[in-house]
Amino acid sequence: MTPTGPGPLTVLPVRGIGEIRRGDEIADAIVAAAAAQGTPIAGGDCVVVTQKIVSKAEGRVVALDPGDPDAKRRVVESESVRVVRRRGDLVISETRHGFVCANAGVDLSNVDAGHAALLPVDPDRSAKHIRDAIRARAGVEVGVIVSDTFGRPWRRGLTDVAIGVSGIVAVLDLRATPDAHGRELQVTEVAVADEIASAAELVMGKAAGVPVAIVRGLDPRWFRDGLLS
Amino acid sequence: MTPTGPGPLTVLPVRGIGEIRRGDEIADAIVAAAAAQGTPIAGGDCVVVTQKIVSKAEGRVVALDPGDPDAKRRVVESESVRVVRRRGDLVISETRHGFVCANAGVDLSNVDAGHAALLPVDPDRSAKHIRDAIRARAGVEVGVIVSDTFGRPWRRGLTDVAIGVSGIVAVLDLRATPDAHGRELQVTEVAVADEIASAAELVMGKAAGVPVAIVRGLDPRWFRDGLLS
Repeated sequence: MTPTGPGPLTVLPVRGIGEIRRGDEIADAIVAAAAAQGTPIAGGDCVVVTQKIVSKAEGRVVALDPGDPDAKRRVVESESVRVVRRRGDLVISETRHGFVCANAGVDLSNVDAGHAALLPVDPDRSAKHIRDAIRARAGVEVGVIVSDTFGRPWRRGLTDVAIGVSGIVAVLDLRATPDAHGRELQVTEVAVADEIASAAELVMGKAAGVPVAIVRGLDPRWFRDGLLS
Repeated sequence: MTPTGPGPLTVLPVRGIGEIRRGDEIADAIVAAAAAQGTPIAGGDCVVVTQKIVSKAEGRVVALDPGDPDAKRRVVESESVRVVRRRGDLVISETRHGFVCANAGVDLSNVDAGHAALLPVDPDRSAKHIRDAIRARAGVEVGVIVSDTFGRPWRRGLTDVAIGVSGIVAVLDLRATPDAHGRELQVTEVAVADEIASAAELVMGKAAGVPVAIVRGLDPRWFRDGLLS
């Protein structure tokens, strides 16, 4: 039992971001909305941004041909490098990024009718861009996670995971760390970025239109030096 | 964009629980430790308890025969109903509960040397027992999640998930819920209990000996009526 360790966490929804359009600087909208609700972004925060608004800002939304009943399938296939499983309309495939997920991350919800949102081309780069822009706008060093909602084989329901990270570790390597009994830990790689994305989802909801959350109070050791990523 | 929705969440580590032994009433230790650190359990909290101390309290710890090099494998097989994959020492198997996980949830870390912790026989019942005992001791209605650390196929790293729940939904059913554009949502089943378990893990750590966290501020609609479960 150690008296130190991570302290309390706070997960704050950022409301009032408004609709994001191609070319918008998401970081400006986040910094302004967080300040407007009385919870300005602070150094050491981790800012979690849902993939949907990142894709919109980056123009990764395509119109589906209304005359083509296979339009969505064609988009999913063009976003896939490998189909892993197919069951009815559902395709589990691997994307160029190496994610194995439903429909290659192509999503019809929370976009205009007849359109589909694709995953960002390089979500780590997207996260870095937002992080750099938050630093430029607000003068604070944060971690940024771009999140999306994935299923898991062998387990019901979906959870939010990190598809892009900047300034914060994705996976914490605990190899050779002793447990509370002084034995080497069996569990060695904790996907903290996925856990942070999941924590953020709890205040976002799927229908509530809250695309950003601030996770405050994370272990400072999880944040990478600003020069490293 | 709706102005309502989930508010800020707080995730509080509960320190000072101490070593749990067979027959201990975990709820009493949690209520006392939370009060002692100035954050007493409150109605509407979700209390996340790691499987390890639940297994210890329930006597689900077995001694491994030091003369048998296959002792751990034998325990894993006795806890499995089906082996899904095997690679070297690692076995992915299905437990009696229906969980597909590494080594049937059998874990050697944070237990005495030469011993292994098994999963609780009925983790939902374990969660309900803790919840009832918290109500009896502190007079508050809470949700309880028993958590464990699982890997995911096709994705690096491990996250904490819910293996038992009481008083709170495991999976939120959003079928037929409109998105912010008025379209039916594609993502329909959110594993909120897993997300809550992941959020709790962020303040527990694997080595820090913090086996309990309080998640405060969750959507009240996720809590089940006390009579239902």
